Amino acid sequence: MKPDLHFTPDVMNEMCPSRRLLSDVTSKWGTLVMLALQDGTMRFSTLRRRIGGVSEKMLSQTLKALEADGFVARRSFDVVPPHVEYTLTEHGKELAHHLRTLVMWLEGALPELPLGQELFARD
Amino acid sequence: MKPDLHFTPDVMNEMCPSRRLLSDVTSKWGTLVMLALQDGTMRFSTLRRRIGGVSEKMLSQTLKALEADGFVARRSFDVVPPHVEYTLTEHGKELAHHLRTLVMWLEGALPELPLGQELFARD
Repeated sequence: MKPDLHFTPDVMNEMCPSRRLLSDVTSKWGTLVMLALQDGTMRFSTLRRRIGGVSEKMLSQTLKALEADGFVARRSFDVVPPHVEYTLTEHGKELAHHLRTLVMWLEGALPELPLGQELFARD
Repeated sequence: MKPDLHFTPDVMNEMCPSRRLLSDVTSKWGTLVMLALQDGTMRFSTLRRRIGGVSEKMLSQTLKALEADGFVARRSFDVVPPHVEYTLTEHGKELAHHLRTLVMWLEGALPELPLGQELFARD
């Protein structure tokens, strides 16, 4: 798509750059990183502990993408051992709020959904 | 995780089944299918036209996952050629509402984000 000041972002259009944003924030780990950072500034190692199952490599890639998108700010301190902190930007905070709403709905709906019914039936 | 009536769904826990729901609805095509179906019942071919870039195979896999999760209902009519329709369930409608809010925010924020700035600068 030729970018111009008048184009209207539309995720249904495969050429629209909003697709990349959607993909980054709804990637397997993207959503969880955004939610974890809602609790405040965090070091890499803390983030990794908070997000069950994420590997060092995937967390690092996810943070890089979210930083490039403008949702996460990275701050590194020139000390030994290296100290790096991650914080949500203002845009990141707004986005995290919408992701939180989505996830809370999913967690809340689980018992009523087929997957939840199945778990309860097995109990 | 041993399922029991008292467990609290938590996406941060890698064993929680809510992770699968999150993954299905935020998959590359899952979100777009949910949004497209907000406009009403749709046939496979219509859905495919609406969602730029989706392949037949991916659309079919995505619909199967969303149907198993309880977000999409599939209705097939015993005619030649086969006629199959997809509709959001009541849970699916609620979920689509949250996804729509998220996507509208992303589309709206795009011009202010690094990716949008880059596009405008190139213009």
